[in-house]
Amino acid sequence: MCHHATTPYYRFMPRWEAGAEARLTRAAYELYFERGFEDVTVAEIAARAGLTKRTFFRYFADKREVLFSGAATFQDTVVSAVISAPEGLAPIDAVVAALSAGGSGLTELGEGARARQRLIDLSTDLQEREMIKMATLTAAIDGALQLRRVPESVASLTAQAGVAVFQTAFDRWARREGSADFSDLIYEALDELRTAIRPNG
Amino acid sequence: MCHHATTPYYRFMPRWEAGAEARLTRAAYELYFERGFEDVTVAEIAARAGLTKRTFFRYFADKREVLFSGAATFQDTVVSAVISAPEGLAPIDAVVAALSAGGSGLTELGEGARARQRLIDLSTDLQEREMIKMATLTAAIDGALQLRRVPESVASLTAQAGVAVFQTAFDRWARREGSADFSDLIYEALDELRTAIRPNG
Repeated sequence: MCHHATTPYYRFMPRWEAGAEARLTRAAYELYFERGFEDVTVAEIAARAGLTKRTFFRYFADKREVLFSGAATFQDTVVSAVISAPEGLAPIDAVVAALSAGGSGLTELGEGARARQRLIDLSTDLQEREMIKMATLTAAIDGALQLRRVPESVASLTAQAGVAVFQTAFDRWARREGSADFSDLIYEALDELRTAIRPNG
Repeated sequence: MCHHATTPYYRFMPRWEAGAEARLTRAAYELYFERGFEDVTVAEIAARAGLTKRTFFRYFADKREVLFSGAATFQDTVVSAVISAPEGLAPIDAVVAALSAGGSGLTELGEGARARQRLIDLSTDLQEREMIKMATLTAAIDGALQLRRVPESVASLTAQAGVAVFQTAFDRWARREGSADFSDLIYEALDELRTAIRPNG
């Protein structure tokens, strides 16, 4: 039999491996908690998941990104909600409603989102990545507001205020044992921001 | 003569080289503008300044840090001002006054500070470093407010609002041709933030 006659069967195997992303994510979290984020390598994550480094890099740019794979989806959700908010809505209300909707999706992840926050709290490297993601989110909201014809300086300040409120609310949610409603936490933080910057406050 | 008798004269030479930091900074700015930040190496900066790479690393951790050497001083100024503000002053007023004072120092640098801003605007890498510096500043102000016994959540939101106001004011200052007073710009931005997040605004 001529071994050139047919393309070998593995050429037809899908590049996607069943549940690979979920297995890699679980393996990474386990290792990060066991040994600390800094000391874990991609090779070890892949091995724990029973996969190759190459498969890891098909899903994640680096070992930090395992914790930020949801950031793009979250940002898209928030930006879409800002753009499609009712026309007469004040910019800050459009932003806070959008962040509330997006954040409810995150908090549905429950213990997973809390575990992620604990890992970030332990690593300067992850904190820096989180800061960059938040700044990117702020810029995206700013852009979305400008698409609503909000003047540039109002758009920028509103986006920054919205993200500050979001971070306060998320922080509280992540650190609380009880299951507070995320939307309540976000409107509570907005009220606090208003009080904090009030003249003669 | 016994060659062990005296320590050689060069042991007593200062490690500091006259004007080295200023020469390296000038050389770095020239090269970043000529060829773009990403394409310049530390060896090239040192050569242009007539110094060695080793001397460069005595002053700066990497080629990005040339643009951020003033950040620590600025942060110290702001934090000290927040801590030593009159006791009855509202947190937001203490923060904005501190940022106004610190920012006036930056804007006195005039064209140098504007050139720096143009370089940052051109490089994602530098923008990320700037975001991290701003987040670090926010955390430092938050800590300074807590030393004033401002409750934790108020401290965090006030620090974030203050830095948003500062960034808006500095951005305007850096992009304007005229010589606006930085303090005016910062209070203008604070008013705008208040208006932007006002209920039914």
